[in-house]
Amino acid sequence: MSIKKVNINEKFALINKHWDPKIAGELNGQHIRLAKLKGSFDWHHHEQEDEMFLVVSGQLDMHLRDQIITLDEGEFLIVPKGVEHKPVAEEEVQVLLFEPAATLNTGTDVTERTVHPDWI
Amino acid sequence: MSIKKVNINEKFALINKHWDPKIAGELNGQHIRLAKLKGSFDWHHHEQEDEMFLVVSGQLDMHLRDQIITLDEGEFLIVPKGVEHKPVAEEEVQVLLFEPAATLNTGTDVTERTVHPDWI
Repeated sequence: MSIKKVNINEKFALINKHWDPKIAGELNGQHIRLAKLKGSFDWHHHEQEDEMFLVVSGQLDMHLRDQIITLDEGEFLIVPKGVEHKPVAEEEVQVLLFEPAATLNTGTDVTERTVHPDWI
Repeated sequence: MSIKKVNINEKFALINKHWDPKIAGELNGQHIRLAKLKGSFDWHHHEQEDEMFLVVSGQLDMHLRDQIITLDEGEFLIVPKGVEHKPVAEEEVQVLLFEPAATLNTGTDVTERTVHPDWI
């Protein structure tokens, strides 16, 4: 068995597209995913999966139906299953996601923004 | 439902004991735990749980039976279930752990170093 560490910044340097999460680790049926976000995503929710957003650099505005929560570097938010959300980033933000391996980035909808993430 | 962000550094500022993980988030049956480590822990393994160590500040030497992997800030390692490991930190290191909520810090053994973590 090969056990290797992952350097998050080195992985981010390989990502050159926004809204295109990549898998950086897997444990207990959950993925560690890394993504660069810029602009506004679509409203969506996940039927069964809670989702964690940890900001590694930049700033993320998580729009919920009743509030907007702004995350700066070193801050995280857990969006519980069933809760509609829309990530928005005025400037590029780097986020680490922790969520079940089955999670679709667009939630219950499959759209042209749906991606099936590869490992990085 | 109350959805609140967590500032990792603010949480770490509340921790004043080594080897005493605190729960900072829960999702999908998994915990986000924060811990300050210094010195050498005991060899242990987890029967059913993979465990992730992400270094937030400082340096962590993860001893495995066949190698030592040194993690610096912004690096993470996943220790698969069943794999014996021993975290060692010469100076204080701040780590974020992802692991199933049921995970005991001392693995399959209950010792005087076993803690049942509280929320922070």
